[in-house]
Amino acid sequence: MSGSLALRHLKNKCTQHASSNCFSSFNFSRFAHSLPFATVKADEISGSQPAEVLNLVQGNWTKSSNWNTIPDPLNGEPFIKVSEVDEKGIQPFVESLSQCPKHGLHNPFKAPERYLMLGDVTTKAAHRLSQPEVSDFFAKLIQRVSPKSYQQAFAEVYVTQKFLENFCGDQVRFLARSFAVPGNHLGQQSHGFRWPYGPVTIITPFNFPLEIPVLQLMGALYMGNKPLLKVDSKVCMVMEQMLRLLHECGLPLTDVDFINSDGKTMNKLLLEAKPRMTLFTGSSKIAEKLAVDLNGRIKLEDAGFDWKILGPDVHEEDYVAWVCDQDAYACSGQKCSAQSLLFMHEIITEYKHNQLAMVLSVLEKMHAHLTAAVVSNDPLFVQEVIGNSVNGTTYAGLRARTTGAPQNHWFGPAGDPRGAGIGTPAAIKLVWSCHREVIYDIGPVPQNWATPKPT
Amino acid sequence: MSGSLALRHLKNKCTQHASSNCFSSFNFSRFAHSLPFATVKADEISGSQPAEVLNLVQGNWTKSSNWNTIPDPLNGEPFIKVSEVDEKGIQPFVESLSQCPKHGLHNPFKAPERYLMLGDVTTKAAHRLSQPEVSDFFAKLIQRVSPKSYQQAFAEVYVTQKFLENFCGDQVRFLARSFAVPGNHLGQQSHGFRWPYGPVTIITPFNFPLEIPVLQLMGALYMGNKPLLKVDSKVCMVMEQMLRLLHECGLPLTDVDFINSDGKTMNKLLLEAKPRMTLFTGSSKIAEKLAVDLNGRIKLEDAGFDWKILGPDVHEEDYVAWVCDQDAYACSGQKCSAQSLLFMHEIITEYKHNQLAMVLSVLEKMHAHLTAAVVSNDPLFVQEVIGNSVNGTTYAGLRARTTGAPQNHWFGPAGDPRGAGIGTPAAIKLVWSCHREVIYDIGPVPQNWATPKPT
Amino acid sequence: MSGSLALRHLKNKCTQHASSNCFSSFNFSRFAHSLPFATVKADEISGSQPAEVLNLVQGNWTKSSNWNTIPDPLNGEPFIKVSEVDEKGIQPFVESLSQCPKHGLHNPFKAPERYLMLGDVTTKAAHRLSQPEVSDFFAKLIQRVSPKSYQQAFAEVYVTQKFLENFCGDQVRFLARSFAVPGNHLGQQSHGFRWPYGPVTIITPFNFPLEIPVLQLMGALYMGNKPLLKVDSKVCMVMEQMLRLLHECGLPLTDVDFINSDGKTMNKLLLEAKPRMTLFTGSSKIAEKLAVDLNGRIKLEDAGFDWKILGPDVHEEDYVAWVCDQDAYACSGQKCSAQSLLFMHEIITEYKHNQLAMVLSVLEKMHAHLTAAVVSNDPLFVQEVIGNSVNGTTYAGLRARTTGAPQNHWFGPAGDPRGAGIGTPAAIKLVWSCHREVIYDIGPVPQNWATPKPT
Amino acid sequence: MSGSLALRHLKNKCTQHASSNCFSSFNFSRFAHSLPFATVKADEISGSQPAEVLNLVQGNWTKSSNWNTIPDPLNGEPFIKVSEVDEKGIQPFVESLSQCPKHGLHNPFKAPERYLMLGDVTTKAAHRLSQPEVSDFFAKLIQRVSPKSYQQAFAEVYVTQKFLENFCGDQVRFLARSFAVPGNHLGQQSHGFRWPYGPVTIITPFNFPLEIPVLQLMGALYMGNKPLLKVDSKVCMVMEQMLRLLHECGLPLTDVDFINSDGKTMNKLLLEAKPRMTLFTGSSKIAEKLAVDLNGRIKLEDAGFDWKILGPDVHEEDYVAWVCDQDAYACSGQKCSAQSLLFMHEIITEYKHNQLAMVLSVLEKMHAHLTAAVVSNDPLFVQEVIGNSVNGTTYAGLRARTTGAPQNHWFGPAGDPRGAGIGTPAAIKLVWSCHREVIYDIGPVPQNWATPKPT
Repeated sequence: MSGSLALRHLKNKCTQHASSNCFSSFNFSRFAHSLPFATVKADEISGSQPAEVLNLVQGNWTKSSNWNTIPDPLNGEPFIKVSEVDEKGIQPFVESLSQCPKHGLHNPFKAPERYLMLGDVTTKAAHRLSQPEVSDFFAKLIQRVSPKSYQQAFAEVYVTQKFLENFCGDQVRFLARSFAVPGNHLGQQSHGFRWPYGPVTIITPFNFPLEIPVLQLMGALYMGNKPLLKVDSKVCMVMEQMLRLLHECGLPLTDVDFINSDGKTMNKLLLEAKPRMTLFTGSSKIAEKLAVDLNGRIKLEDAGFDWKILGPDVHEEDYVAWVCDQDAYACSGQKCSAQSLLFMHEIITEYKHNQLAMVLSVLEKMHAHLTAAVVSNDPLFVQEVIGNSVNGTTYAGLRARTTGAPQNHWFGPAGDPRGAGIGTPAAIKLVWSCHREVIYDIGPVPQNWATPKPT
Repeated sequence: MSGSLALRHLKNKCTQHASSNCFSSFNFSRFAHSLPFATVKADEISGSQPAEVLNLVQGNWTKSSNWNTIPDPLNGEPFIKVSEVDEKGIQPFVESLSQCPKHGLHNPFKAPERYLMLGDVTTKAAHRLSQPEVSDFFAKLIQRVSPKSYQQAFAEVYVTQKFLENFCGDQVRFLARSFAVPGNHLGQQSHGFRWPYGPVTIITPFNFPLEIPVLQLMGALYMGNKPLLKVDSKVCMVMEQMLRLLHECGLPLTDVDFINSDGKTMNKLLLEAKPRMTLFTGSSKIAEKLAVDLNGRIKLEDAGFDWKILGPDVHEEDYVAWVCDQDAYACSGQKCSAQSLLFMHEIITEYKHNQLAMVLSVLEKMHAHLTAAVVSNDPLFVQEVIGNSVNGTTYAGLRARTTGAPQNHWFGPAGDPRGAGIGTPAAIKLVWSCHREVIYDIGPVPQNWATPKPT
Repeated sequence: MSGSLALRHLKNKCTQHASSNCFSSFNFSRFAHSLPFATVKADEISGSQPAEVLNLVQGNWTKSSNWNTIPDPLNGEPFIKVSEVDEKGIQPFVESLSQCPKHGLHNPFKAPERYLMLGDVTTKAAHRLSQPEVSDFFAKLIQRVSPKSYQQAFAEVYVTQKFLENFCGDQVRFLARSFAVPGNHLGQQSHGFRWPYGPVTIITPFNFPLEIPVLQLMGALYMGNKPLLKVDSKVCMVMEQMLRLLHECGLPLTDVDFINSDGKTMNKLLLEAKPRMTLFTGSSKIAEKLAVDLNGRIKLEDAGFDWKILGPDVHEEDYVAWVCDQDAYACSGQKCSAQSLLFMHEIITEYKHNQLAMVLSVLEKMHAHLTAAVVSNDPLFVQEVIGNSVNGTTYAGLRARTTGAPQNHWFGPAGDPRGAGIGTPAAIKLVWSCHREVIYDIGPVPQNWATPKPT
Repeated sequence: MSGSLALRHLKNKCTQHASSNCFSSFNFSRFAHSLPFATVKADEISGSQPAEVLNLVQGNWTKSSNWNTIPDPLNGEPFIKVSEVDEKGIQPFVESLSQCPKHGLHNPFKAPERYLMLGDVTTKAAHRLSQPEVSDFFAKLIQRVSPKSYQQAFAEVYVTQKFLENFCGDQVRFLARSFAVPGNHLGQQSHGFRWPYGPVTIITPFNFPLEIPVLQLMGALYMGNKPLLKVDSKVCMVMEQMLRLLHECGLPLTDVDFINSDGKTMNKLLLEAKPRMTLFTGSSKIAEKLAVDLNGRIKLEDAGFDWKILGPDVHEEDYVAWVCDQDAYACSGQKCSAQSLLFMHEIITEYKHNQLAMVLSVLEKMHAHLTAAVVSNDPLFVQEVIGNSVNGTTYAGLRARTTGAPQNHWFGPAGDPRGAGIGTPAAIKLVWSCHREVIYDIGPVPQNWATPKPT
């Protein structure tokens, strides 16, 4: 099929949806080891052998009397039982958060050995995820709760592994890097530090059951916070198992709390516990409600309305057509960054050269600015579109896409002071720490100084 | 008076207040020049010759029919008439904000010559403020509306001048510095930019009529935003004159709007105009209300409860006593950073060595974390107090103070994701821009690439 | 003339040289002020009223008995008398350098008020150069000793002014910004500082009599060094006057020494004084000799062999032809960055597409890598040329040129560990300071610590 | 023993030397695995089963006919045979270096996938060194050639492992981070890149057979260089085995060459191959010769004269005495950073308060400035000593020491433009890359632009 046909085909396909739940996988039967940290076997969870997901608070895994039963997306059988906390059960979580002071579990002047401990935990966890039996375990676990192909589920595990590799060794403490500038006189120096918020909460959605919570959780920990994590109940099994892996790698049981609950309970908990910061990834509607409930003490990554615009130099390329196809249909799990709107240059049809300004004004009127793509190698065209838009993660060039959120670059919305980023050192510092300035002024007091006479 | 006596004296003095409105000044009569930009003469404003303060919108200075009359703090005469906009008059301001797109007046891909223009405006304005007749004009203007000594008022002008000096020449564009990292394959690179918010609002209080609005306003402009500025009506005359100076130095009339109004009107305007970001400096109560009204699209610098703690090595120093005195009483205008609570080590009385933990837990329970001082040259003591506290601007060492907010270091609260900073490059970037990531992916597409067969 | 003709014309012109000494200027007669700092009048220097250029050492302007007479390039008349130091006269300069310790005149732990003083000197000097009578004075002075048009000479003054604007206010101390990272246990933090070299020398050539010495001299001072400056005797008059301006602006007389001498004497001085660092801008031959004489304690900006390559997308553009013309002929003073070699794509003639690799291998074999230009908006072509070359300052895009060295970006050779840069914050830090690490390790010593038993 | 006695004892001990070759080790017999990469067994090398050390060039391990026999330090038996290249054999090494262009094996515009490959190699190698059987192997190998205790040898392996952990995942490409600044008009942006040197050489000494060559070698590779490595023949066996481990982890055989030779041969090779950069760690005498031979294209870490000064607040602390002891005698391998000179305050004897200036002037006169220690928690004392000295790695505080060079902070001399650092991101960028500026200037050319008329 020629590129031209491919693009035409693409247009025809725009009203259909063709996500294939290709639950294929590689055969890892050679890894007969059971995994010491795991409390479930990915292949064996079923209606007759349902998995149980617990809560973790103040260092203890706990069960409530309230079970939320999750149906298997393949056959509708109830195959996961999630122990959910109700409004009467939130007190231990509120107390646990309140035990962490505002200055955090560590900061550059307190318990710096924790930076090293977290570097070690991360090194071990990265290595664990690099082991085929472990990555296979998590990829399959993701598949059990989410309509992803094995390749897509594995990619999520892989990105998580690569993220962890980025914070091995001393890289956690390097996040706490401060700067200093000479003051006005001898003995004065001003220092800018990254300070934790202390007790914080993280609320993450169903579409990336492992990647989003791990990247945000570890970022929160690295900077010195004590996080309470809540993952969408439909997929929370994945992260519950991952926490057990992190404990195996040395993470103290009391460092992270983990809660399962409905939204109303969680809302009540937030209002009582008053976390110093909350990271919310999910729908715009809930995001706006939480922003009000929490008086703006929040960072958000909400849904995007993600456009792609093909430049005047894009003609009949198979490659571009294929990427468009992938962005629109193939990445079924990536709700937040899937291509929502496609503009093509008059080579094909959609807009004429003198209509670019109109297209740009359409983009300006949108309300969510997560990802975008400018498919063009014409530098003047790219410059005009980027200079007149605001999407947070914008791909540019003939190979541009809108999906895929790797660990090596910033991913997040722009144009909003509440906007969060995920995964990179810059994102972690922005979301999980604030600036604190310490000005040393040690003297000496100038010789012959005397108390000034009152004027 | 010995240091010991001085500290005791200080404690006795704790319930009195002794701010002296020492309206002295130097004699600048030799500067007979009138100032072309100015529409008032600082010395001649009076009940019979009242000053008028106008609004600026869409490039025009405008008068409303609604005048708010400000009484002279010295004799109660109505000496300033502020033209205030009421709810029916907000439309032009809403429209003016809406004319600025989300991607701002400039960004690294749009109108970069504006960075240079702003560098030039800043260079000229810094030089203007360095001229004795201009600094004297503004110092006196500040004194007319605010109970400051000439020295204090002049210090505010001086800090403003020094701030402007910091952004001469290319330093405005250096704020837009981006970074980039190699991608996964040839032709891919990810770039992190600082992006403007576009239409923004700035609301500033009475206590620093010149410094706070100039530093925030220029920061907003530098990063590419179009700000609407509102200053407390009691003192807005100062900033109205400063805007005229900036215009003289080349700032386009349409770059900044300036509004006078009561709080209710401003609130309505904010709800209609929906600015992308709002900087509020002022009372905690209004700050929290605005945070809700604006769904958290806000940065705040609210009141601080500012403590000072004297270390075990502080004995009978005159110098320390004098600084305490200054922090508590002498800087009457500096409401936000004045010393609110003083802990002394048992040399004197207040706390014993084994009570430090208790003192720290008192600090932890406070709700506002702006400034603090740890008066000690004992590095272990300083380490313990800093590591267990969270105030945003913390002075440490024998010469530590809580007041004084120069342009060379960060000033702002910590421990709050909504916290603003003021004046430094780091503060400007944090408050007035967000991260935008652009990932170039130009190819080449791998040789022999073919559309993958569907699986 | 069409672009095609223009490019052909350009090729024909390649063997001629057409620099026009257009000594035109604007009329500044309205600036009747004499300049208090100046000891010459640019218009009145002549054979009958020759200018005298002195030396400055240990705070005193001195004359030697040895005068080097410089002929007027316009008419050959001896119009400048340079007081040159001979080998017997170097002792005061050697002593003056030795009076500066290795840790410099200031550093972050010593005399930080000097950072502010230099910021003030710079602010004043930038303003001075912005005054038409002062910029005119220096532009004309440059023209008297150098074959530049008024526009070119003025551009040199303007770049110098803009450079100074970049280091107003606190920007000098911001150059001394350090960073710190948490250590292994409580009380340990490692800090990376920029440290001065102490006594240093600067040797600069004839082609930019003001810009090169000012930018390097101020950089050296900013970081805490004490420089001895030597400018090519033919043009040293310009810098001698500039030093007098700097003194007027508050630079202490003892901060900089200034010497005129022949090369042999300077070499002897260097061997005796053993400066901690030497910046040399000039011919490659002398650069290599100095590198050996000074055992490599040197940074170099030597001559470039500066190529330009036109991409396959460059056709008949007038604009490109005009820029090529400018780069090759019009900027007669810019020896170091003038275009030395031009490759055009087969649109015109020089190389065919499959010869690009060959062209790149020619570039690889060159020995000096200062500037280059890739004239193309084809991102894949630009990527290939940049990725396979090494010139330090490379311009890319349809508007690329090889000449012009503004103050806002790095200018200097690449591919050589001895390579210097000029003017930007990054260049100043690289050339004029080194890394010093200070690791605080204050304790507390762990409770119950006891001397380990020998094993 | 009291601290006071301990310090006195220390003084008495100053003329003796008591390094104990405590060749103890843990028992790792449970690790029965042989190591696939290794060609020797640490325990079994002996006069009768001598180890052979080969050369690596252009991807092949080669033997010369020339064997240098190394005697076992324990019993004098010839136990290692090093294949040394003589002057006739250098050609393949010269050719191999010349095959690498000046723009390196990779850079941000060329083969970026190599950054990821090196990140993967590093991740694997870090994990390998974390395995007890591998760390034990290298610790024992180090002990066979160097008089270190098992603990000391193991510490060297451990630091190497931690260094590798710091450059896992994306951290190699993060070293290539560039920055950009808006230009003067639309379409112009200036970018500052870190560029490789291409063919480089690394020469390292006997005292850290693993840590110094690994840290410098990996740094060179990370930035895109092709290194030829030469390690002191007495200890080169360790690094030869480490290279085999790196190959096992995926490092291409052609990325690094490895040569054994005498100094004369190496010198000839350097003069012929003209590497673009050479890192030399070793004696000052050879360093100075190489600086001349290589015209200054060199970075040096030479011997230090490392002083320690005890502050007025240091009294009878056992802890300080013990650290002094360790610094002076116990770290027998750490020649470069061992404590060479000790100043104590009059509590004990050596200098009186008014003699501090004299002590500082003694420090100023020294010639090598590697490490130093200011043992004091008096911030004014520390400030005075640091502000008046220049040693590159200076420890300050009651727990200060002079020995120990971990991977988390800079280690290297200061005060010399040729000074190298080791191991940290800042050190790697400084030593193994240079600045390259690329200025994009893509247009658009201003509308209605026309070729200016010649003037």
